[in-house]
Amino acid sequence: MIVNMSEKATEAEVNHVIDRIREAGYQPHVTRGTERTIVAAVGSGRRHEIEALQVAPGVDNVVAIAQPFKLVSRQVKPDRSIVHVNGVAIGGPDVVVIAGPCSVESREQLFQTAHAIKRAGATMLRGGAYKPRTSPYDFQGLGLEALKILREAREETGLPVVTEVMSTEDIDIICEYADMLQVGARNMQNFALLRRLATVNKPVLLKRGPSATVKEWLLAAEYLLSGGNRQVVLCERGIKTFETETRNTIDLAAVALARDLSHLPVIADPSHGTGKQSLIAAVSRAAVAVGADGLIIEVHPCPERALSDGPQSLDFAGFEKVMRALVEPLRTISTRVATAASAVQPEAARKLT
Amino acid sequence: MIVNMSEKATEAEVNHVIDRIREAGYQPHVTRGTERTIVAAVGSGRRHEIEALQVAPGVDNVVAIAQPFKLVSRQVKPDRSIVHVNGVAIGGPDVVVIAGPCSVESREQLFQTAHAIKRAGATMLRGGAYKPRTSPYDFQGLGLEALKILREAREETGLPVVTEVMSTEDIDIICEYADMLQVGARNMQNFALLRRLATVNKPVLLKRGPSATVKEWLLAAEYLLSGGNRQVVLCERGIKTFETETRNTIDLAAVALARDLSHLPVIADPSHGTGKQSLIAAVSRAAVAVGADGLIIEVHPCPERALSDGPQSLDFAGFEKVMRALVEPLRTISTRVATAASAVQPEAARKLT
Amino acid sequence: MIVNMSEKATEAEVNHVIDRIREAGYQPHVTRGTERTIVAAVGSGRRHEIEALQVAPGVDNVVAIAQPFKLVSRQVKPDRSIVHVNGVAIGGPDVVVIAGPCSVESREQLFQTAHAIKRAGATMLRGGAYKPRTSPYDFQGLGLEALKILREAREETGLPVVTEVMSTEDIDIICEYADMLQVGARNMQNFALLRRLATVNKPVLLKRGPSATVKEWLLAAEYLLSGGNRQVVLCERGIKTFETETRNTIDLAAVALARDLSHLPVIADPSHGTGKQSLIAAVSRAAVAVGADGLIIEVHPCPERALSDGPQSLDFAGFEKVMRALVEPLRTISTRVATAASAVQPEAARKLT
Amino acid sequence: MIVNMSEKATEAEVNHVIDRIREAGYQPHVTRGTERTIVAAVGSGRRHEIEALQVAPGVDNVVAIAQPFKLVSRQVKPDRSIVHVNGVAIGGPDVVVIAGPCSVESREQLFQTAHAIKRAGATMLRGGAYKPRTSPYDFQGLGLEALKILREAREETGLPVVTEVMSTEDIDIICEYADMLQVGARNMQNFALLRRLATVNKPVLLKRGPSATVKEWLLAAEYLLSGGNRQVVLCERGIKTFETETRNTIDLAAVALARDLSHLPVIADPSHGTGKQSLIAAVSRAAVAVGADGLIIEVHPCPERALSDGPQSLDFAGFEKVMRALVEPLRTISTRVATAASAVQPEAARKLT
Repeated sequence: MIVNMSEKATEAEVNHVIDRIREAGYQPHVTRGTERTIVAAVGSGRRHEIEALQVAPGVDNVVAIAQPFKLVSRQVKPDRSIVHVNGVAIGGPDVVVIAGPCSVESREQLFQTAHAIKRAGATMLRGGAYKPRTSPYDFQGLGLEALKILREAREETGLPVVTEVMSTEDIDIICEYADMLQVGARNMQNFALLRRLATVNKPVLLKRGPSATVKEWLLAAEYLLSGGNRQVVLCERGIKTFETETRNTIDLAAVALARDLSHLPVIADPSHGTGKQSLIAAVSRAAVAVGADGLIIEVHPCPERALSDGPQSLDFAGFEKVMRALVEPLRTISTRVATAASAVQPEAARKLT
Repeated sequence: MIVNMSEKATEAEVNHVIDRIREAGYQPHVTRGTERTIVAAVGSGRRHEIEALQVAPGVDNVVAIAQPFKLVSRQVKPDRSIVHVNGVAIGGPDVVVIAGPCSVESREQLFQTAHAIKRAGATMLRGGAYKPRTSPYDFQGLGLEALKILREAREETGLPVVTEVMSTEDIDIICEYADMLQVGARNMQNFALLRRLATVNKPVLLKRGPSATVKEWLLAAEYLLSGGNRQVVLCERGIKTFETETRNTIDLAAVALARDLSHLPVIADPSHGTGKQSLIAAVSRAAVAVGADGLIIEVHPCPERALSDGPQSLDFAGFEKVMRALVEPLRTISTRVATAASAVQPEAARKLT
Repeated sequence: MIVNMSEKATEAEVNHVIDRIREAGYQPHVTRGTERTIVAAVGSGRRHEIEALQVAPGVDNVVAIAQPFKLVSRQVKPDRSIVHVNGVAIGGPDVVVIAGPCSVESREQLFQTAHAIKRAGATMLRGGAYKPRTSPYDFQGLGLEALKILREAREETGLPVVTEVMSTEDIDIICEYADMLQVGARNMQNFALLRRLATVNKPVLLKRGPSATVKEWLLAAEYLLSGGNRQVVLCERGIKTFETETRNTIDLAAVALARDLSHLPVIADPSHGTGKQSLIAAVSRAAVAVGADGLIIEVHPCPERALSDGPQSLDFAGFEKVMRALVEPLRTISTRVATAASAVQPEAARKLT
Repeated sequence: MIVNMSEKATEAEVNHVIDRIREAGYQPHVTRGTERTIVAAVGSGRRHEIEALQVAPGVDNVVAIAQPFKLVSRQVKPDRSIVHVNGVAIGGPDVVVIAGPCSVESREQLFQTAHAIKRAGATMLRGGAYKPRTSPYDFQGLGLEALKILREAREETGLPVVTEVMSTEDIDIICEYADMLQVGARNMQNFALLRRLATVNKPVLLKRGPSATVKEWLLAAEYLLSGGNRQVVLCERGIKTFETETRNTIDLAAVALARDLSHLPVIADPSHGTGKQSLIAAVSRAAVAVGADGLIIEVHPCPERALSDGPQSLDFAGFEKVMRALVEPLRTISTRVATAASAVQPEAARKLT
């Protein structure tokens, strides 16, 4: 931490900062510039006491140097973590595809979908039982009934199941039925929920909040790890921006960045990330190319009849197309000019003289 | 709802949409343009079924016409609501100022602050007992101990108390000690929490989420009203934008807009809205000028020693200054040229000819 | 500038940074922490050479300490600047109201408007001659004809005129006709335009870009001042955010912040800032309350027939209402509980025991 | 266009809208709902006159149905356009890689770079002569000298050259020296510049503005096409969001979306899109996977000595690594569970029963 004194700071103000840094458990280290003085807090002490010096007299601002997260960091654990979900390894060499409907609507709907996605190559099943909906008048999920259907589908297809948990009160029951618990984007900073999930022996899928920085996202994961649960998978699902043609703006650079900063597996959700059927194949390919350890994709037998998220859900044929797109080779890189240069350029050069 | 067919939509596709609109309980009304056809869904039916038509073949997009919220709307209740918090009326003719520390840190800290803000003119006390903190390593609040201190301070000063509730599990205990329950910005779409608060006989202060549109904010309030709790006060506290000089961007137009769309009282939080001591007086004045029914401001006996939110907390002298600023008259409007025009302009006019 | 070495930086890497800091004209000052080393660049040298060290081996990041702008800064000139526009003083004790149509559409339209706004109390006239329009198919302005109409209106009413300049090529002709030149939001970082306007002897109204930070906005002004033109007025007109109910999100805290950081006058544009007739009175009041030195408001004889920006333009009656709103006193602050506490609270306390 | 009347609209207000729609050249088509009336404007007339009805009495809002752009649209030209830049085809089957320094700093710097990127497989050269810089105190480019160096490098290497044009005044001279003119992000809505470039017989690289929606970006391109220049390549380079770990947020879904909506080629700029050396390889791969027709990447012989954009520039070895990354196959998709299900799942199922 560095405390940056203002140009007009008095000697007494600098001394006060030095004293407070010592009080907070750090060693002060003063650099006197031509225009201003900076005081570094060296060692390890109580970070917030330095942060609060921002409002001490004569202080311009306080700059943090080190990242605030620890256990999620690759500095603490340089090798990548693999999270095992009932036989599926997320974070290993292969990309894991999770698919299924936004909401479980009926036994038939889920079973049809589970078989279809398995046939197409997905290895995990998603499906909402408890649904976070913007409006209280929207479908809120089938709850326990959905959980039972999910477990049955898992038993029949062998696909491990992930479903969202919205409240501490539902954790126990969901643990009984599902293989992985999802923390939805809107709950990324529901710290009461995170603290309880930290004590559970189930892997957690932690979605990035729609306005969370990568740093805040990793600190949310830090709640889980520091509380004892190291089975955490991060999921980028788009952030809120001014663009309105897509539901969210999927931040694929954040997938690469989160993998640089953290050892945890990172997957991407092109369904919420774009909100548009027509973009899912392209964005899924891009997510894999940027380094995502997996994808989570919404699939429904008949999207136009879905009780939620229809516009971003794929039907079975659409999902198969996405799966095929994932194994198509990347477009080749042009080498045209490099070889043709001698022939083409002289002419061009003449024209311009 | 209007279903906008694409230019290439076939007759069969239009008919399919017409059928689905009927099925969803609406009456279809077709407008055939020169380039495309639009089909309106008239009456009242199952809204999500029309929304999902966005992915029906031949459909370009679906446009909602009416606002999705009801009970919070001024169309349903044109006169403004007043929320009574143990003797304080929020939404009445006068602006209510709520003040206090970010976190309750000790009996002494809270009592000093409560007396100081009362002396300066505040009529409600805030103080965090359960704290939502970005990092698990930050101070998480004193919990029950803080609640007890808050109640004591209320008894001594007569200032009703508002404090944040982070989890359904804490609702009962907080109801016992506090006069108003705050839903923090990060929990604005914690629907499990909202659903439970809808059944409580205490007023709720609902902060706008950092990436929530005004519409989403009002829909969150709709959860409370539709569940039975009409004692809801909205609070604008800044949204996330690209600007980094301020902690958030306080959206004061949203205060005016929320009051246009809804009958609920709306207050503003200049502390979180700016994150900067130096801007709080100016922004508080602006919030009052834009129509806010109240303010909530962070005050601490010694901000540079605060366990949380020091940089945006005012000390007692700073808070008194803000209170004085709230009663200063607005700057006068210049009428200079209108009167001086005859004298000044001829010259100017000559110069330009 | 501070160069923050990574935890794994070698001695050779630190030495390389030290050498480069000397080479760039600064003195290096090293602080060795328990985990990492930081090197401050003290004195004044070539800033970009230190910035580029961000990619030197062993460097984590580089942090700037001082603000990058100079002439616009209050550190350089602590007293506020007043910009005189042909008899109107912007930045003095009184708030200046500039009003007029988005585009000059005809002599009649402009004259009617000029007389109406003058009657209502405005002291400057705005009107677009060259219009920046998102679509090439929209009305692009009357150009020179509009400039002539504007000058005539100025001569008749005595109201100085501000109009937008979109291109270096139009600067000379606009200088002949107008009293102040506006740089539109989309051109805030059109540096070729700024460099030329720096050499002109006319005041410039510099709008903040829709995605410009306050720092970038002040640096754009720095182009004008460093090039020789000190007659600069800043204008906040809303930034782009995820909120869609308003055209932009007007950042009123930025008005206060820009006035803290800079001596230049700052005005606000509630018309573009909100895009909504119904919000203009409230937001205008708020802008004055936050400290704005002026307002610029769109007025049209018949907004629903305006060739541009109709939805955010006021008619004459609407504008008069805004002007009246600007002199209404602020809402009073409640003091209810403080006085009623002794009566009300005991009961409340009993209830809770 | 659809005019949505408010619930309280009177018959006279509806009739006024009907009249105005006729006046604007459209045919009105009325749909009377149970709660409100909507009036569609059918045919083709003066769009802005309908837009302005938003403020007519009794009108709630006006909704546009059709996209506002024409010539850039795939509805007008369904097959993809290929833009030829002196022998290099952008928009054809192969991905084109453009590389080079942010600024041309010297003959030696550019020649070294040109040879290095050619060796690594790039087929076009970039280099700034006139630089848009946030601060007037930053390096502003070598101007004409840089143009001469660029042309020489093109003649020596055969790599066609793209460079930025910041002002209408520089267009002629740049056309003489360069093969393609770049409109920088900050000038995307510099309409004076666009109008002049529309008349030039050179391909234009149009960067997306940092706060431009895809729609606004395509409308900027429409200025070029409607003015006569069809040789337009779009470039996504990141938008401004709240995330601060990356310089911008690169919106790769927008690349796919722009290619869906428009026939123009679309390339991506991972250097500005991320601002971070360490992310460029991953994001480049993702851009190719999402469908980009090309990449533009900043390369410098010694990034830590670059006069601009050092932190996001690659050195030669770094660029070679990116080029190699572009031909590596995509990570394989896991099929683990599908095959292992019978073995693994029964156990798991037992555990849960």
